[in-house]
Amino acid sequence: MAKIKWVFFDIDNTLFDSHRLSTAARKNAVEAMIRAGLKANFNAAFAELMEIVRKHGSNYPGHFNKLVSAYKVPREMQAEIIAAGIVEYHNTKFKLLVPFSGVKETLRKLRAKGCKLGVITNGRAVKQWDKLIRLGLSGFFKVVVISEEAGVGKPNKEIFKAALKKAECRPKEAIMVGDNEDDIAAKKIGMRTVCFGNKNQGADYQIKRFPEILKTVRKIEKR
Amino acid sequence: MAKIKWVFFDIDNTLFDSHRLSTAARKNAVEAMIRAGLKANFNAAFAELMEIVRKHGSNYPGHFNKLVSAYKVPREMQAEIIAAGIVEYHNTKFKLLVPFSGVKETLRKLRAKGCKLGVITNGRAVKQWDKLIRLGLSGFFKVVVISEEAGVGKPNKEIFKAALKKAECRPKEAIMVGDNEDDIAAKKIGMRTVCFGNKNQGADYQIKRFPEILKTVRKIEKR
Repeated sequence: MAKIKWVFFDIDNTLFDSHRLSTAARKNAVEAMIRAGLKANFNAAFAELMEIVRKHGSNYPGHFNKLVSAYKVPREMQAEIIAAGIVEYHNTKFKLLVPFSGVKETLRKLRAKGCKLGVITNGRAVKQWDKLIRLGLSGFFKVVVISEEAGVGKPNKEIFKAALKKAECRPKEAIMVGDNEDDIAAKKIGMRTVCFGNKNQGADYQIKRFPEILKTVRKIEKR
Repeated sequence: MAKIKWVFFDIDNTLFDSHRLSTAARKNAVEAMIRAGLKANFNAAFAELMEIVRKHGSNYPGHFNKLVSAYKVPREMQAEIIAAGIVEYHNTKFKLLVPFSGVKETLRKLRAKGCKLGVITNGRAVKQWDKLIRLGLSGFFKVVVISEEAGVGKPNKEIFKAALKKAECRPKEAIMVGDNEDDIAAKKIGMRTVCFGNKNQGADYQIKRFPEILKTVRKIEKR
């Protein structure tokens, strides 16, 4: 029987529905841009935007500028159309930046049973903290390791090691909860892995609803 | 008796209280940063932030990064503190980005009496459009001229000429409403000028509340 001392989480698609958020925000933005004068078919423009996001990465700040260029919008109309997209994108984002059902309660229960909580995530540090704060979850996590600051990202095992070092915790006493292969790589250093979602990509355990983590921790501790 | 065909407005401190917004947003941001762990005296940190804004300009995107550097925050705490500032800054901003009392009603009345409405403003085009959209005012303005796009800013008379050209309007048939000397420079090309605020810096007319524009237009038309 091994006591679990730390539970680490990814942020996007683990603590909140990042996929739903970015899809809805981009769709609403394209609709707003069309209302503001972008002469485009919605489906074609959304596909174009997704291609721009794919090509330039999701952290690139000029997605809507590129979209407006792709549609050859006259210069004097560009700023209004871009601004319409930005405003709608942000309004949708802030509305949908809420934790998955049961996240807060589950984190509280994990803490109450003596687990310490952490985050191991890839991305830009300020942007990831921005999400934790807006989700109302930043206070739960005692260790937050973000690839930009760590100098290395998941699935590289060094980021998991860095988090465990900060936590002063042995791999066997720690769980990594995430939605994809990058998170499951924590296995390589001996952490227990939990995959949250419909597709399990090789984790030790799979859960379909966030609160099932509690049961999983108990299961691991009983083994 | 000259009919006024166009009324042009500045945005910041004319359509909304930009000074109140940026002061409150920055104060709240500094408070949030201190709550997140910035070891600083509030008054000193706010003064430091204002100095950073003065030095780097209000459009510079790294004010909070500079503040955190000034206080030598340890690297592993920087992102959380910066993000706390950004979230609070934006929350305050979106709450206070509302038109001055009576703006919508007055614009509607001006339009009803046959005046066309425009904007002549200094700044970055997308940022100024973002404000018009969030204020819920973008639909009112048929001509929007922004220094970044015009290639020249107030008080240079060329920006006023560019706006009148777009509007197909003679200077005498147009009013410029703004809060400072830059706006009053419209005088140089023969536009009527209205100063909104407590200090009149040489405009033809001064008003202390936004809806007084209506009376002023009637006064000008009767002369």
